[in-house]
Order: sequence, then structure tokens, then C-alpha cells
Amino acid sequence: MKVEALRLVISSARKFINMGSLTRLWNLLKNFHPSEISTLMTHLILREKLILLNTLWEKDQEKAADVISELAPEDASALLENLPVDQISDILEIAPSDDVAPILEHLPEELKDAVLKSMEKKPTEDVMELLDHDQETAGRIMTPDFYALNENTMVSDAITAMQLEADVESAFYLYVVDNQEHLRGVVSLRQVLFSRPNTPLKNIMTSDVISVATETDQEEVARYVADYNLVAIPVVDAENKLVGVITVDDVIDIIELEATEDIYKMASLDTTDRIQDSALTSIKKRLPFLLFSLITASVAPFVVKNFQDTIANFVTLAVFMPLVAALGGIAGNQTIAIIVREIAIGQTEWISARKALFKELLVGMGNGIVIGSIVALVSFLWLKNPYLGLILGVAVIINLFIAALIGTMIPLFLKLIKLDPALGSVNLLTMFTDSIGLLVFLGLGTVFMSYLK
Amino acid sequence: MKVEALRLVISSARKFINMGSLTRLWNLLKNFHPSEISTLMTHLILREKLILLNTLWEKDQEKAADVISELAPEDASALLENLPVDQISDILEIAPSDDVAPILEHLPEELKDAVLKSMEKKPTEDVMELLDHDQETAGRIMTPDFYALNENTMVSDAITAMQLEADVESAFYLYVVDNQEHLRGVVSLRQVLFSRPNTPLKNIMTSDVISVATETDQEEVARYVADYNLVAIPVVDAENKLVGVITVDDVIDIIELEATEDIYKMASLDTTDRIQDSALTSIKKRLPFLLFSLITASVAPFVVKNFQDTIANFVTLAVFMPLVAALGGIAGNQTIAIIVREIAIGQTEWISARKALFKELLVGMGNGIVIGSIVALVSFLWLKNPYLGLILGVAVIINLFIAALIGTMIPLFLKLIKLDPALGSVNLLTMFTDSIGLLVFLGLGTVFMSYLK
Repeated sequence: MKVEALRLVISSARKFINMGSLTRLWNLLKNFHPSEISTLMTHLILREKLILLNTLWEKDQEKAADVISELAPEDASALLENLPVDQISDILEIAPSDDVAPILEHLPEELKDAVLKSMEKKPTEDVMELLDHDQETAGRIMTPDFYALNENTMVSDAITAMQLEADVESAFYLYVVDNQEHLRGVVSLRQVLFSRPNTPLKNIMTSDVISVATETDQEEVARYVADYNLVAIPVVDAENKLVGVITVDDVIDIIELEATEDIYKMASLDTTDRIQDSALTSIKKRLPFLLFSLITASVAPFVVKNFQDTIANFVTLAVFMPLVAALGGIAGNQTIAIIVREIAIGQTEWISARKALFKELLVGMGNGIVIGSIVALVSFLWLKNPYLGLILGVAVIINLFIAALIGTMIPLFLKLIKLDPALGSVNLLTMFTDSIGLLVFLGLGTVFMSYLK
Repeated sequence: MKVEALRLVISSARKFINMGSLTRLWNLLKNFHPSEISTLMTHLILREKLILLNTLWEKDQEKAADVISELAPEDASALLENLPVDQISDILEIAPSDDVAPILEHLPEELKDAVLKSMEKKPTEDVMELLDHDQETAGRIMTPDFYALNENTMVSDAITAMQLEADVESAFYLYVVDNQEHLRGVVSLRQVLFSRPNTPLKNIMTSDVISVATETDQEEVARYVADYNLVAIPVVDAENKLVGVITVDDVIDIIELEATEDIYKMASLDTTDRIQDSALTSIKKRLPFLLFSLITASVAPFVVKNFQDTIANFVTLAVFMPLVAALGGIAGNQTIAIIVREIAIGQTEWISARKALFKELLVGMGNGIVIGSIVALVSFLWLKNPYLGLILGVAVIINLFIAALIGTMIPLFLKLIKLDPALGSVNLLTMFTDSIGLLVFLGLGTVFMSYLK
């Protein structure tokens, strides 16, 4: 939906909701895709969302459940919270299990238990089992609904079986298991289509099937699907029994989420912070990071405090302090972004960490020499003080070298001690570049004071 | 491949290459997936890459072509450049057309023409046509190989037709066209499987098919595929004629690339800068951004220059300059990252820009009051100067408010004037927070100097 169209639909939907014209609301929305309706909903206030949801529910229960499962889990649960337990469980019984688990998770503990108890139709164990796995693992995001048939099944029987199970999410591959449900192979629908009816599946299956374990990190799952160009990947337990399937649409969500998380972490943001959150919520989410920044940013004042006499002696040094600090910060940021992203998309392994460091140091030195020389020249032309220009130039060169060193080491070090390489790295970098950069600059100023004045 | 395994494979591969044991090299690699071999190649030097490629080519031409198409286009062309024209065209004839176009693009102009001329088997028009479309559009990334059959084709004939065309990338949907090749509908392989042989496709097809135009931006294509959970999307020309298909694996590549680009742009990096580039290449790519930063970072010194007397009068002000500047930068970065990412994943439309600004201003004010109060209190406890504490606190509060204002406006403004919202935004922000923050801080210091001393 284009912006103009969206704007029109939103204003019409609000009008109908507030006039109580629910049939017209339904006529407006019935031809939209659930994902479009869920986008629309983010522009409504809670009361309007509830009326819209109830209208959908009355007219087309499946569509209502699809809209709920298209919402972010925290948004979906914030909405469902306001409904009676029975209706929540009715909605979640229709929605796909892999979307239900995270929504349940975001409900208040008591409500979650009540809903789980009142869910009848959906095999509650499915959802419970998903919740048993760690967050951000394959076991948590997989769907337990998939096509799996015994290896001895004939192609003709496989076709009949698939016809009976019409509503399965991963309809592109047929997984083949043995009598103990161990994953044995995979058959594509094309292979089924082109094989003689009385061939057993084990004769046409590809037995070299790429699978992941339930505890595999979701980022690694995404990596497999992306690298091997898959549209679905099977999940097996410790005994190689097939327990679920992860489809490419979920993988896309993971990839987008992980990218957002990298950006957010580098920018000192909580990964759940959203533009739609209330101001108070965002304040609460951002404060811890600002408090941490306050600590890292407080190192530089301690450094500068030691050079008060130098600055008093030659105040022009204070004029260039922001420049030295800013250039180091920006150059270091370049290095951090490169290293963090290469770690995230799996290119930088420890095998090349030393190579990366060496290269970044060369880049820092090269750029430092160019930028430092320009700074020296321009400041000399401005203030006609060759020694100030020289000190400034040298300080910039050293600070860009430090920025490259620290910018490479911080994410690699954070990764080594099993922390997130992006989280807090920019703050730590600024701490070093601000304080070491100013230390070098003001230190040189102190040593060569007699030339400066 | 795990790191340890990769390390072992690389060192073995290098050993075999340098000993000339090419049969052992082949035995080592033959069971690896092309994407694994391409990862491995990034760890080799050019000479080794060429030997490896030639070995693959001799043993299994298709595998060699697959490895080439798994490489980043610029890496692939850098490698192919070193081969004779005949061999380049032989390799590219086997690789999929949608991967061939960007590789050709990265070859030197003359070599590209020579290769295009010597390509025989592959309908060169396909590749040429792809190159006719603008970069980053659907037309450029689509594959012109797809299943499309006339709407009057019987299911049984469709199955036979598909059996003959065994090697088509998008094997999950069958597109249905009329006599003029207009896109009419889509049939899933499941529908084909479950329909009577003498049904014409038009009776079983879904006619409400989501398609994109050749000129649609690739980011928008990715958005459609992600939002509608598709595994492939058809591309039509201005007359609604089916001209290509984009598959979900290409969409995943786009999503990862766009995320990397957002991170890179926010960090002042060229989007093609990679850890594997030589130091000289990276220096050249980063210098323009650093020169731009040099300009934006030079505004603050001009501001501070006007307050030299104030600083000379009370040097302690210089001590806290880095703190005021750093806090504004970090808070503004939070706002920019939120706005840029929401624009990228399509949530912030102009409809909610005013809402976003209002919210960010509230957050800036709220966080400013908390952080400003802490800074005021701690600096008072440190230096026992209540007026300094007060001035510092107020400066921080105002700077965090400015950071929120500027941090929201910059990406929205850049978007409004059709520039990339991420590019240069952090530099511009730092320019404002550094100079306005220090202006407020030193200005307050000047006005209340009599209380400070």
C-alpha cells in the first residue's frame, strides 16, 4: 500500500469505527492482506484496534487470527490482554503455533496460564514444547506442523496423504523419516510429481539433507538458509528425530530483526525500542545506555583536568579539542561498523582477526596522515601558528591510529569474552578516542608550550 | 562449516595448491557446497584462487560456475579478469543469468564487450536486457528463466512441459500467461499435483497474483516478498507482460545488503568497503567521508574560538567540554538510529513524522533532565562549585533536547529531499550537537561568569 492509499484507508477506518459503521469497516478491509491490516493497526489507538479486531473476528475468524500473527508479538499480546480469556484462546487456536508461542510469552504470567488451560483444539503440547526451548534458538521459532512421511511410503500414497493435510505451512518439501522418526531425507514436490506412483520415497529422496538442531542459534539458522538458498530447513532433536521446520519467511524476519539489533546496539539502543512506544517507555529503555555513556564520557574530563594549567597558558588549545575528539570518534566508528558487520554476516572468523587488525592499522595511519596534514595546514593558515598546526596534525594522526586499534579490538574482544560485539562498543571507543586523543594533544601542547606562545 | 573445520580445509587446500596436488585438492573440495567453497576462496591469494578455480573447472564445470556465482559480483569479476576471454564466457554461459549481469558489469568495459560477443550458448539478449534496467531495480535482479505456460494448457501437458525444463531456478510456482504473454495467474506445484490431468490451468490458477514492475526498487521488492511471505515474485513490464521472476534467496541477499548499507551509511562508510579490501582501497573509500567529517567537525572550533576569553577566565569550563559534546552525540545517535531504521523497514511514513518528532522531543527532555541532574550533582560533588554544576546540568538538558530535535529532523529532511536518510546524518548531527551544545555551555558560562569564579 502506498502512503497516500494507507492514509486514506486509515482515516476511513477510523471514521467507520467511530461512527459504529462496522459493516462498512468490514467492506473496506475484507480485500486487504492480513499484513496490510496489521500495518494499518499500528496507526490506531487501543480502543480502535479492539473494535477493528472484534469486527474481523465476527466476520472472518481466520483473517482476524492472521492479522494477530502478523503483528509483532509484543503488540499482539498488548492487544489480546484486553479480551476475555476464551476469545484469546479461540484466536490463538487458529493462529500458527510458531507465532503463538512468542505472543503467549509476552502475556502476563497468570493470563498466559489461563489461556493455555482454555486452549482446546490446538494440541497445547506443541505450544508448550516450543516455549521449553531457549529464546532465539531453532526450537523456539520452528513450526511443529510439517509434512513428514515414512521412507517406505509410495509416491501415490504420499500424494493422497498430502491432499488430506491441506493446511501445512511448509508446502514445498516433503520430509522423509524412518520408523523411529529419524530424519532420513527430503523430497521436493517436483520429484513427487515426476516419479512413478509405486516408487517408495526412499528411492527418490535426497538423503544429504541440511538440518539444524533445536538449540541452534536463530542467527545461524538464518545463515544456513541464506547460504544454501533454501526455502525451509528441518529441525532435529539430539537423536536426529525430526521435530519441526523453519520456513524462509521466518528466516527473513530473523535477518531483519538481527540487522535492526546490530544497528540499535551500535547506537546504544535497547533492541525493543520502537517509534510507536510511548515517550515514557522509550525514556526508560534509553536511560541505562545514557547512564553508561555518562560513565564512559566522564573519563575525558579527568584527563583534561590535568592540563588546566596548559590550557590557561594557551587557550587556543581548547578551541581545537572538539575537532581532535570528533575526528577520532568518526574514524573509529568506521572501523567498528566494518568489524561488527563482518562478524554478523559470518565473514570474519578468528582466522583473519590478525589480518583485519593489521589492515585497519594501516588504514588508520594512512587516513591519519592525510587528514592530519590538512588539519595542520588549515589551522596554520587560520591562526598563523606553525607549531600549533604541527601539534594538532600529529595529535590527529595518532588519534586516528588509536581509533583503528581500539575500533578493531573492542568488537573482537567483546566477541572473545562471549558478549555481543556491537553492544556498547561505540561508547567504549569514544571513551578511548576522546581521552587518549586529548591526552596526546594537550600533552604535546604542554611539552612544546615554549614554541606555541 | 565451523571455524576449526574451515581453518583446516583452508590450510589443506593451500598445501595441495602449492604442492600441485590438484587431484587431492579436488577430492578435498568435491563434497563441499559451492557457497562453502566461495567462502574458502576469500581466504586465498589471487594465484591460489585461480588454481583452485581452474581445478574445479576441469573436474566439474557446473560446480565452478556455481562457485563464481556465489562470490560477490566484484570479487567474481576481479577473479575472472585473469582468465582468457573464451573461458570467461564459457563459465558465464553456465552460471544463472541474474548472477551473470552484475559480474559482467564489474568487468572492464572492453573485456565485458569481448565476453558478451563470445558468449554463444546463453541467449546473450537475456543478459543484455538485464543490464538495460536501472541498478537496484526488479528488472536488474530478476532471472529471465521461469516456468510460464499458457492459460489453456492442460495440467497433464503442464507436467510434461516441466519435466522437459528440468533446470529452472524458481521451481515452486508455475506462472500462467495468455496468448500475448500477459501475466494472468499463478499455480502452485501442489495445485498441479492435486488436479485432474485434463483441467486447463486457467481453471485452477489463482488470478490475484502479486507482481512487481521492472522499475520497482529492489528494496520494495524485498518488502513485498517479506510482507506476503512469498518464495518468488513475478516481474512484469509496462504492458503487464511477464518478463522475469525474483526468488526469495535473492531477496534475502537484498535484505542483508540493505541492512549492511544502513549500518555503513550511519557509520560514514562506503557501502562497498570490505574487510578483505586492501588497505589502500579502504583508505581511498573512507577518505571522502573523513573529509566531509572534517568540515562538519570544524564548526565547533569556530564556536569555541568566540569564548576564548571566557575559558581563559575560568579554565574548568574546558574540562567539561568533551562531556557536553559526547552526551549530545550519543543521545542524538539513538534518535537517528530509530528513525533511520523505521524508515528502512517501512514503518515511518510521513503520516506519523510529526508524531515521531513530538515523541522524540519528550524523550530528549526527559532523559536530559535525568542525565543533566546527575551531571550537575556529580560535578558539584567533585569540584564543589554549585554554579558550575547548574550551568553544566542546564547545558546537558538543552543539548539532549537539541539532539532529539536534530536527530529526528535530519533523516526525515534527507528523505524529503530524496537523499538517503542514513547517509551523513551522524556527521551532521555531531556538527549541531557539538557546536550548539558548546555554544549553550560556554554562553551560560560567559553570562554567569561572576558567579562561577
